[in-house]
Amino acid sequence: MAKNNSRVVPNRDFRWEGIPLKAYKTDGTHFKDITRQSLLGEGPDDWELNLQTRYFEIAPGGYSSLEVHRHPHSVVVIRGSGSVVLNDEVFDLGTFDLVYVSPETLHQFHADKGEPLGFLCMVDRYRDKPLLPDTDTIDRHIGSGAARAKIRI
Amino acid sequence: MAKNNSRVVPNRDFRWEGIPLKAYKTDGTHFKDITRQSLLGEGPDDWELNLQTRYFEIAPGGYSSLEVHRHPHSVVVIRGSGSVVLNDEVFDLGTFDLVYVSPETLHQFHADKGEPLGFLCMVDRYRDKPLLPDTDTIDRHIGSGAARAKIRI
Repeated sequence: MAKNNSRVVPNRDFRWEGIPLKAYKTDGTHFKDITRQSLLGEGPDDWELNLQTRYFEIAPGGYSSLEVHRHPHSVVVIRGSGSVVLNDEVFDLGTFDLVYVSPETLHQFHADKGEPLGFLCMVDRYRDKPLLPDTDTIDRHIGSGAARAKIRI
Repeated sequence: MAKNNSRVVPNRDFRWEGIPLKAYKTDGTHFKDITRQSLLGEGPDDWELNLQTRYFEIAPGGYSSLEVHRHPHSVVVIRGSGSVVLNDEVFDLGTFDLVYVSPETLHQFHADKGEPLGFLCMVDRYRDKPLLPDTDTIDRHIGSGAARAKIRI
């Protein structure tokens, strides 16, 4: 029988027991008031997983980095509300709404409804690194309009 | 640029817009009062995903099938409470608790706290088929005690 790492990790107030609150990113991208907890798939005791489950929480007024990459995101909001930019559209988000970010979609999450926006984001363990779009890329994907006014870069 | 299938799927009362409520399983396994919604990774418009995100909900008094397989499960409870059997242990589950079901772990979810138990379960798209354990397997993994009393087969 395989070494057994099965476990339950209790949650209290959107903190998971024994899982550290981490910085969102460290590479100098533009973001505001966002934290990360790596729930599954990044540790030595769940190496069997090809997929990673992370929890991101954006404080009111904050946002994630505007980015684009080849790998898709599967997102489920589990706390609060906000909005998401997907290329040239802006969508409102409520608790338990689902977001699919398909490959090469410019995207940015905003906690712009006066409360936190907390969401699970699932990705492949092996994936390409996000790119920060240059102005040409932004022009090509977003143009003008509500999404252009919404993004923070 | 890739065909863009990015989207937001609104939720109301744990039903996602346009996503059918499906039978849990159809292969004659033993389970009770459980439904499934395939959120992402099983459709023609999100073929880019290697991972699938499903939502299972067990009505009060119900349970999932007792099963074992090679692929791991990443589980996040998003509604109600209940319990889970992981080999020879039983763990209480509350909302937002996390469960990691590592390979070859016998497991069964129970909505045994008088309310629904709803959870997201993420898996690889390509995975082995669950096996229903025979008595020898159950004896080897579970033995006697609380878990043995808890399981329904």
